[in-house]
Amino acid sequence: MIETPYLLFLGDAPDQLAAKVAQGIKDWRPEHAVGQLRLEGCGADVGLSDMTLAQGLEAGAKTLVIGVANRGGMISDTWKAVLVEALEMGYDLASGLHNLLRDEGDLAAAAMANGQTLFDVRIPSVAYPIANGEKRTGKRCLAVGTDCSAGKMYTALAIDAEMRERGMKSTFRATGQTGILITGGGVPLDAVIADFMAGSIEYLSPDNDADHWDLIEGQGSLHHMSYSGVSLALIHGGQPDALILCHEPTRTHMRGLPGRALPTLQHARDTAMAMALDANPNAKMVGISVNTQHLSLEDAEAYLAKVEAEMGLPAVDPFRQGAGRLVDALAAV
Amino acid sequence: MIETPYLLFLGDAPDQLAAKVAQGIKDWRPEHAVGQLRLEGCGADVGLSDMTLAQGLEAGAKTLVIGVANRGGMISDTWKAVLVEALEMGYDLASGLHNLLRDEGDLAAAAMANGQTLFDVRIPSVAYPIANGEKRTGKRCLAVGTDCSAGKMYTALAIDAEMRERGMKSTFRATGQTGILITGGGVPLDAVIADFMAGSIEYLSPDNDADHWDLIEGQGSLHHMSYSGVSLALIHGGQPDALILCHEPTRTHMRGLPGRALPTLQHARDTAMAMALDANPNAKMVGISVNTQHLSLEDAEAYLAKVEAEMGLPAVDPFRQGAGRLVDALAAV
Repeated sequence: MIETPYLLFLGDAPDQLAAKVAQGIKDWRPEHAVGQLRLEGCGADVGLSDMTLAQGLEAGAKTLVIGVANRGGMISDTWKAVLVEALEMGYDLASGLHNLLRDEGDLAAAAMANGQTLFDVRIPSVAYPIANGEKRTGKRCLAVGTDCSAGKMYTALAIDAEMRERGMKSTFRATGQTGILITGGGVPLDAVIADFMAGSIEYLSPDNDADHWDLIEGQGSLHHMSYSGVSLALIHGGQPDALILCHEPTRTHMRGLPGRALPTLQHARDTAMAMALDANPNAKMVGISVNTQHLSLEDAEAYLAKVEAEMGLPAVDPFRQGAGRLVDALAAV
Repeated sequence: MIETPYLLFLGDAPDQLAAKVAQGIKDWRPEHAVGQLRLEGCGADVGLSDMTLAQGLEAGAKTLVIGVANRGGMISDTWKAVLVEALEMGYDLASGLHNLLRDEGDLAAAAMANGQTLFDVRIPSVAYPIANGEKRTGKRCLAVGTDCSAGKMYTALAIDAEMRERGMKSTFRATGQTGILITGGGVPLDAVIADFMAGSIEYLSPDNDADHWDLIEGQGSLHHMSYSGVSLALIHGGQPDALILCHEPTRTHMRGLPGRALPTLQHARDTAMAMALDANPNAKMVGISVNTQHLSLEDAEAYLAKVEAEMGLPAVDPFRQGAGRLVDALAAV
């Protein structure tokens, strides 16, 4: 686990979108972030106090988290001076970038010299077991998607927040880099070796109280040719009691695969349920989460009403409407 | 690609079963093996001429292949002297063992000093692409299973052999260690990083002549909780035109998962076809391959007749009956 609280490094992020990791931490775990550190020319602002490294330390920060996706995948020289100084001052560093902190000679040397840790959350740090398929105690909800990037992480985080608000027992279980940085731990599933994928999810979501919910972050889609194997490993390793189907209704083709149409909601439901019932004969699909950001409010409400009638399940946009009705459905499982 | 022909190293294999990699090479690619090298106490014999390293070289061997699964996963000292000598004499070494040749200091040093190559086929040597899902030319057949170790590799190799016999164009595409050593190349799919699984299969089975068949070796099972993601990546990366369902009828539970029942043939067919049709709308299941080794001949024939009637597809044990009827079915696609 990455030590919290964090100081969020926004660097020279060209715009707000480039700082989406930092924004995610601020939105979902504000108690994990004491402030933001911005370099000259930074075009992003996640609404936290601007701090120097020294001010961050005073405010209790333990880890400097790279909360920005840089262009071209490089850790720029502009950043380096700050990152080395942070290590010298006693910060750990955490990053989800493709190029690894540990592969940068100066950062590795500074970390070693100062006894600090470099967390490269893009790659696993654990030797995961092979899945044993055994039933675990506690309840599990998995978000599955008609496509990649359909709102699965957002949906799970929103459900987790609503459950906590209601005093229910819940844990968001991160399976991607952003989710891991938000919560401080998880499995970077896309980087796990094939044979250990399902086992890594069993490891991530162990036995728990009977009334505890793990909200497992979904990845990819059973219908996405590039990543479907990862999605199936989540269903079989997660053995969800409840599934929520996530959908973005304005996509004209599967993400990154021009010419490949999205499955219908019915087909996506049937496929996911066939696979989920193999793992857990009591699995149920309990709701549809629709990302309506590209629809007007009026169109969104009409679309949600139509989906709800066709599918016979609550259909909600958790961003616009909150996750309350999805949590109602889960509480009834 | 591993350079052929091979000299097959049987070492001190305690019994015939321990030499199954060597036996597979002898059975399916006899032209790849000039002879076998056995140490004192070897309890296996794959029926090739016994040779020393020097005799193997004279017979043209380029690579010494470790054709034996050792106990406890260790490369024993008994073996070491021979392996080092082989490198010094100009052999490459190839192995599918879990513990890697390259991690043995003396072998790595001898390989470097003599300019020879160590092939550890258990791990990938290629940076595979992410799958793009595009349609490729040529035809593809994939063996899928109700369970792991149900005869998928054997079935694909038997079909490939029968196709060659008939003068059809075909290539067996190995996705596991034994298959890679038999044919000299392939993808060790269980060791590929999650995001690149489907892409590795696209890489393995590129565009080909319109009348050429790739016989893609299956792995795992869509119904096996530990490995299902790997099986789905094969279906979506392989985009098979034809599927063959492999089954071992005496299993009482999924391999390694006590208490988990096997799917029915109907359920396994429906699941595999639902996934395959997402990748290739013309995909067809063309036959059932049954491993009847644990049934009497009479029981086997009765079982095959029953399956054939129930499923409406040719049901064959390719070991007992040959793969002819499966190839007939493929030729009709």
